[in-house]
Amino acid sequence: MKLIRFGKAGEEKPGIINKNGQRLNVTGFGEDYNEAFFETDGIKRLITWLSKNIDNCPRIPESERLGPPLCRPSKIVCVGLNYAKHAKESGMQLPTEPVLFFKSTTAICGPDDDVIIPKGSQKTDWEVELAVVIGKKASYIEEENALEYIAGYVLHNDISEREFQLERQGQWVKGKSNDTFAPLGPWLATRDEISDPSNLNLWLKLNGKTMQDSNTSDMVFKIPKLVSYISQFMTLLPGDIISTGTPFGVGLGLNPQKYLVEGDVMELGVDGLGVAKQNVIKYG
Amino acid sequence: MKLIRFGKAGEEKPGIINKNGQRLNVTGFGEDYNEAFFETDGIKRLITWLSKNIDNCPRIPESERLGPPLCRPSKIVCVGLNYAKHAKESGMQLPTEPVLFFKSTTAICGPDDDVIIPKGSQKTDWEVELAVVIGKKASYIEEENALEYIAGYVLHNDISEREFQLERQGQWVKGKSNDTFAPLGPWLATRDEISDPSNLNLWLKLNGKTMQDSNTSDMVFKIPKLVSYISQFMTLLPGDIISTGTPFGVGLGLNPQKYLVEGDVMELGVDGLGVAKQNVIKYG
Repeated sequence: MKLIRFGKAGEEKPGIINKNGQRLNVTGFGEDYNEAFFETDGIKRLITWLSKNIDNCPRIPESERLGPPLCRPSKIVCVGLNYAKHAKESGMQLPTEPVLFFKSTTAICGPDDDVIIPKGSQKTDWEVELAVVIGKKASYIEEENALEYIAGYVLHNDISEREFQLERQGQWVKGKSNDTFAPLGPWLATRDEISDPSNLNLWLKLNGKTMQDSNTSDMVFKIPKLVSYISQFMTLLPGDIISTGTPFGVGLGLNPQKYLVEGDVMELGVDGLGVAKQNVIKYG
Repeated sequence: MKLIRFGKAGEEKPGIINKNGQRLNVTGFGEDYNEAFFETDGIKRLITWLSKNIDNCPRIPESERLGPPLCRPSKIVCVGLNYAKHAKESGMQLPTEPVLFFKSTTAICGPDDDVIIPKGSQKTDWEVELAVVIGKKASYIEEENALEYIAGYVLHNDISEREFQLERQGQWVKGKSNDTFAPLGPWLATRDEISDPSNLNLWLKLNGKTMQDSNTSDMVFKIPKLVSYISQFMTLLPGDIISTGTPFGVGLGLNPQKYLVEGDVMELGVDGLGVAKQNVIKYG
């Protein structure tokens, strides 16, 4: 199933995309896609509800804005340098265990919202990523059980300000957390939709030109390892997001380096997770 | 005013400490101390409510557990190396601008809850800190207006696993986020209670022996600067926590280094923010 949320920012309502690709309003289900929803097997309950009510769900006009396809999670955990060629372009060693950092959840926005270059920024960069949505509370879980803890997957552009991240006295979170730095969606694909998350193409185009074009098979640490690993250092809650790292082709790695400017357009996608398109604007 | 929350973990109810030091149950006010409470001037509204209802508020038995004095915030932002002598004992340069890192909000626990040494940990350490609670949404705010954005202050033990933090391939969040690594309280002192947050003694004793003993006047970056600075990199939400750094005297800085073991007892305090006491246990 594909979960979406639609409407004005901050007032989003839940919806789904049905088998025919139509957007349906499921406000009648009475819940939003939040921690409580995932914690109480909301996906299964929604399927049951839909089996009786789908014909009464109103269509969502195509003109409606899509929001992030889940409510604000307790945290966004990101994995750094998880593709070998990207570690190299960043001038960093390939890590021997996952590098972890957080993004502020206030950075979350919809898949097609404008991305805002922050005040004083010269080095705002793109990063297409496959993000995992946690389905149940996870603490000290084993790699072989990790998939059970996943509700689904979502496309994420891990927008990064490289000066803030790397030249402002640490830690990376400083360059990952400005508003609109985490466009999510268009949809949350439930786990059953993605038969092999370790073999998905992911790509990003800037103004129509392909900048990133890779496959999740190139990840250094695969998803089960990541979920298990992170759960040794913190408890993951239902709805939490793990963004699994970006492949080669970010602006930081180009020679000369290239960063976002007002008027740029980013389009990005991951197999099975749809396509997002973000216009770049300046703050203020 | 002093805000507290009491009861079983996860089921805490709101209370206050009155002028006579008595704990009163304010469940009748009908709100918990969460983002919506702070966002809608909850402290003022609670004062108004108390002016009519305080005599009907039940006493909270002294035997009741205290929880963290506010609900789970959207984030905990921590400031690293913000006391000169602590930067030195950590073997790090004094930063020229604030070092920022996050803690997972799942680390939050009550002021007198047991602190759990994580699985596989050899280097769990203490850090007494003054934490700021944000009162209203803050983005790109100026230093001179920063105090208006503060709801109050709370005592925080920024428990840190030094191997996870410093020897496991980065970033620091990895050593700051295990369950029980953020005991908060006993109370949230509203801003009016603390006339000068830049002149408060703070201390921590381990098994009765003073390990940390300093004053917030030794901070490298003061609170207004920190709030303003952080708001350039992310939007702060009502109820968010900024932990302002720890002074000299952590286990990492001792020669030989000394870390927490099962059975240890930490007592810590900040002037005006009360005293917390945590027993150390092992996971599992």
